[in-house]
Amino acid sequence: MGGEPIRITAVRITPVAFADPPLLNTVGVHQPYALRAIVQLHTDSGLVGLGETYADSKHLARLDAAADAITGLDVFALNVIRAAIADRLRGDDAAAGTAGMITSASVVDQVLSPFEVACLDVQGHALGRPVSDLLGGKVRDAVPFSAYLFYKWAAHPGVAPDTWGEALDPAGIVEQARRIIDEYGFTAIKLKGGVFPPEEEMAAIEALRAAFPDHPLRLDPNAAWSPQTSIKVASGLAGVLEYLEDPTPGIDGMAEVAAQAAMPLATNMCVVAFGQLRQAISQNAVGVVLSDHHYWGGLQRSRLLAGICDTFGLGLSMHSNSHLGISLAAMVHLAAATPNLTYACDTHWPWKTEEIVKPGVMEFVDGSVAVPTGPGLGVGVDETQLAALHEQYLRCGIRDRDDTGYMQSVDPNFRAGSPRW
Amino acid sequence: MGGEPIRITAVRITPVAFADPPLLNTVGVHQPYALRAIVQLHTDSGLVGLGETYADSKHLARLDAAADAITGLDVFALNVIRAAIADRLRGDDAAAGTAGMITSASVVDQVLSPFEVACLDVQGHALGRPVSDLLGGKVRDAVPFSAYLFYKWAAHPGVAPDTWGEALDPAGIVEQARRIIDEYGFTAIKLKGGVFPPEEEMAAIEALRAAFPDHPLRLDPNAAWSPQTSIKVASGLAGVLEYLEDPTPGIDGMAEVAAQAAMPLATNMCVVAFGQLRQAISQNAVGVVLSDHHYWGGLQRSRLLAGICDTFGLGLSMHSNSHLGISLAAMVHLAAATPNLTYACDTHWPWKTEEIVKPGVMEFVDGSVAVPTGPGLGVGVDETQLAALHEQYLRCGIRDRDDTGYMQSVDPNFRAGSPRW
Repeated sequence: MGGEPIRITAVRITPVAFADPPLLNTVGVHQPYALRAIVQLHTDSGLVGLGETYADSKHLARLDAAADAITGLDVFALNVIRAAIADRLRGDDAAAGTAGMITSASVVDQVLSPFEVACLDVQGHALGRPVSDLLGGKVRDAVPFSAYLFYKWAAHPGVAPDTWGEALDPAGIVEQARRIIDEYGFTAIKLKGGVFPPEEEMAAIEALRAAFPDHPLRLDPNAAWSPQTSIKVASGLAGVLEYLEDPTPGIDGMAEVAAQAAMPLATNMCVVAFGQLRQAISQNAVGVVLSDHHYWGGLQRSRLLAGICDTFGLGLSMHSNSHLGISLAAMVHLAAATPNLTYACDTHWPWKTEEIVKPGVMEFVDGSVAVPTGPGLGVGVDETQLAALHEQYLRCGIRDRDDTGYMQSVDPNFRAGSPRW
Repeated sequence: MGGEPIRITAVRITPVAFADPPLLNTVGVHQPYALRAIVQLHTDSGLVGLGETYADSKHLARLDAAADAITGLDVFALNVIRAAIADRLRGDDAAAGTAGMITSASVVDQVLSPFEVACLDVQGHALGRPVSDLLGGKVRDAVPFSAYLFYKWAAHPGVAPDTWGEALDPAGIVEQARRIIDEYGFTAIKLKGGVFPPEEEMAAIEALRAAFPDHPLRLDPNAAWSPQTSIKVASGLAGVLEYLEDPTPGIDGMAEVAAQAAMPLATNMCVVAFGQLRQAISQNAVGVVLSDHHYWGGLQRSRLLAGICDTFGLGLSMHSNSHLGISLAAMVHLAAATPNLTYACDTHWPWKTEEIVKPGVMEFVDGSVAVPTGPGLGVGVDETQLAALHEQYLRCGIRDRDDTGYMQSVDPNFRAGSPRW
């Protein structure tokens, strides 16, 4: 029953690389390996908390600085931990430092996130309680996820095809959907778009609607379209899409589209930090925020985001980058304890073949993952796998995500401007 | 280290009455006794959690219904507890049911509050942690409060004067301020106004400024003024007031005043529920929200309010009604764990002479109360005192706060309209 502080004594940050298929998006194609950093937060209680985050080089340097800044602090002192990280990173806010498409997130909140999750994991272990109980308690026993479909090549250049094969047209997307739904039971479907001209992607959505009449559908072109193009697509897919994700760049553009679109617009691009909420809300730019604890500052601040969405009449869903099991566990605890998170969450889970958490907890049944009932996050690290994926990180040579550069190595004429259409 | 649910087995709700001086406000005068309800939440762990709330008759009936609805639930299942209370009270939302000036608060959040606090108290005891640790951890070791000055009669009709004496003009207010600051060390001053014509109250503020040149000053007429009068007062007190509280009724009126006032407007009247935030923010009606966990749904939802204020650029201070030590303890834990609660909080503490918590914890030093470091709220109930104040409740005959009716029993010509000037 303690009562003494549980002090952080050391933080081990391990970058890992795991094999990733050639999934296409509007800025290029996934590289052969996706990077993540695994945080193991050691305390004077002997308990170790887990966190997972990006592993781009600039972010790794910030994680190291933050780990130093919070050593010695109590895992319950989350307000003080955030302030210590903000102090240490002051002035270092020019860019988020994670490649990809989330470029205007808060540096402090991105860096805080894995440490906050790890502190909650320690708290949960100390208290004998799952992390969901530290977030107000679960309101559902399992969290539904959506099938995440991608246009994809059959293989990375020069290697053998993966088992999923090529998907470059509506028939390929429907085939991919059939397999992913057969295997995982997903009850909602998201298609990553922005890869082909909008008419082709609209045709893919219509093909999915025909093949899966009862699955809510989403399309996410990652701001590949102008407002005019977005309005045309929205009109063409009225009554078909549950929501349309980030059709066009920026809050102003989204507001222009939202005013004419029949379905809600969702975002994980134009509203990715608390500082962007006021403008987006005042302009009615988005109807659904896709939360992501990796850049919203961890689980407690993601609850704040959820409360803001509830207060201001915004829908709430959940975004995903390529991730491993610690992230999935954190997402499940958070989603389970968020009453107004009523959409199926995103996950890249089926696309990875390698893992660092011990098997048996994070399993999909009927498209959902049961909330772990063990203490903390309820997952443990497989140290052998962690070492192997760290070796892979060292060996693979990738230090920053660069979908565009990788695509250009295959197609020198590729250009990643936004909007493209 | 448990892990088993800690289930609510019974809830004891004890209405109490404690002696209250004849403090004047714009709707009348405090009755000889103020009412509170003390919640003692029993669990199958043997631990008992404490909460404190209003005790008006309609609210008491709702507390009973809510207590029944949550019996059997886990004290960590706060989301489920809120939903159970909302379900039980569905349809019963015509009026807040607490007399006084907070008439548009959420019934569910008002009823939830003492149970949520009591659940956190149990959690803290189970974990050996102060409640502040369950709210992200304290960022200050002591919480500053403001001196709360009132125009007042020397005595309730027919009884001997209290030791504070009469305060009906600037000199009386300054004398009251000297004593309350000498005894408690407050470093900020709030005057409850709306009692006399605005010119007299402005004179009182100017007299306070002359006598206490370094104390931030606030004036709260409880919406006694028209927008035009409010703008005149704001102009007259520019550079003198830290903020002006609820000069005029309603969000529209506040927005009209705010557009012309030199100082921020604060409110605990036109924004008292999450549903009012969007309009108030879009109209820039208020600059400071006075939070109060008694109607914002407890400590976790008050943190949400704090996060919203931070996100939308609003200041945050804390409101108080007449209260006892359980409420003060909860306020101190919350304020200590809220980084952006940077104003001194309100408290009616000095005005009461009777108490139900054991002495020794809630002490004012230099105007501040140290955050209790014991488990939970860090306060215990003195059962003898609780029984005595419950007897007083039964005896006194007051069942609903009625400042206006009591004033009219003394001055039949009194009218409590808003605005009055």
